[in-house]
Amino acid sequence: MAEAAAARRSRITPERESELYGAVLGLLREVGYDALTMDAVASRTRSSKATLYRQWGGKAELVVHALRHEKPLDLADVDTGSLRGDFHEVARRQDDCQMEEHSALMRGLAMAVHDNADLRKAFRELLIEPELEELRRVLRRAVERGEVSADNPAFDYVVHMLVGAFATRTLVDELPPTQEFLHSYIDAVVLPALGA
Amino acid sequence: MAEAAAARRSRITPERESELYGAVLGLLREVGYDALTMDAVASRTRSSKATLYRQWGGKAELVVHALRHEKPLDLADVDTGSLRGDFHEVARRQDDCQMEEHSALMRGLAMAVHDNADLRKAFRELLIEPELEELRRVLRRAVERGEVSADNPAFDYVVHMLVGAFATRTLVDELPPTQEFLHSYIDAVVLPALGA
Repeated sequence: MAEAAAARRSRITPERESELYGAVLGLLREVGYDALTMDAVASRTRSSKATLYRQWGGKAELVVHALRHEKPLDLADVDTGSLRGDFHEVARRQDDCQMEEHSALMRGLAMAVHDNADLRKAFRELLIEPELEELRRVLRRAVERGEVSADNPAFDYVVHMLVGAFATRTLVDELPPTQEFLHSYIDAVVLPALGA
Repeated sequence: MAEAAAARRSRITPERESELYGAVLGLLREVGYDALTMDAVASRTRSSKATLYRQWGGKAELVVHALRHEKPLDLADVDTGSLRGDFHEVARRQDDCQMEEHSALMRGLAMAVHDNADLRKAFRELLIEPELEELRRVLRRAVERGEVSADNPAFDYVVHMLVGAFATRTLVDELPPTQEFLHSYIDAVVLPALGA
């Protein structure tokens, strides 16, 4: 089934596929997963609904492919020589506009990833795991440089601290998450918690 | 308009009103705000949809009243004599089951509070501001006792740290937020960030 669907998709041009995935993520940010309909995707991308179903099988599969295609985060190769420099570089990897888009995507998917195992898997693989992996590398180098102690209990919570600040900024302060906010939070919370 | 609606609601027994609000919050946790329909509320509470509309005016107003009625958090009068004791007492104010319910409610409302100003106002007043106010009291006493310095930059981020950990636990670890998790996070992150 999946191979057949992939073969059918291969007949679409890469540009068209990219345009379609962009429209899906745009709708996700605007209305969230539940309210996202194949009708809206069809209408925004001037496709027929039958084509969308034939090529992707359904909404969850289409959203997973869109997430996979867009790869919203790229934290690879952060290595500035200091833990503080690395964290601030992580915060700089998205400009304020991309952060607000990322934030809207998290809001739009929060319910759905909890209820849909396929979506949760994609969300974790594409948005959570890459952050975790990069942060582990950043921390490993800081330990090797002697900047932080390897047995600091805050090690397990670096993602909670960062993603949590990012996710709660709008709720708590009614302000979008920005680079400036993250830089300030890193200096005030993340580095002191790590004893750096 | 609002007064007329309140007068009509006053004809319902308090027990019936409470039952109805409980059903609304239950549905919010299960399906989220967008997918919550007046049909579903009517069906679950054995009411007529016309009655619901007549008495509350619409979905947003009904949800706001339900949140107001249930007051999901009560952090008043936390005062154990130490900052660490106070934070741990805050974490103990909800048992694990209530935490998971609170967490589901946040997921269910995340998109909606962003898009609906009335809901956002209620959500902030009922779920965010009480936490902020109580945490300010807790911190003020810790400063008076000399446990922490009043100009610590992490002061502004205590709610981000706590609510963020709470909100990201499921996403990052695929585990529900629990008292044990919060106790561990408070000791590993919140207290060290505050220099306590």
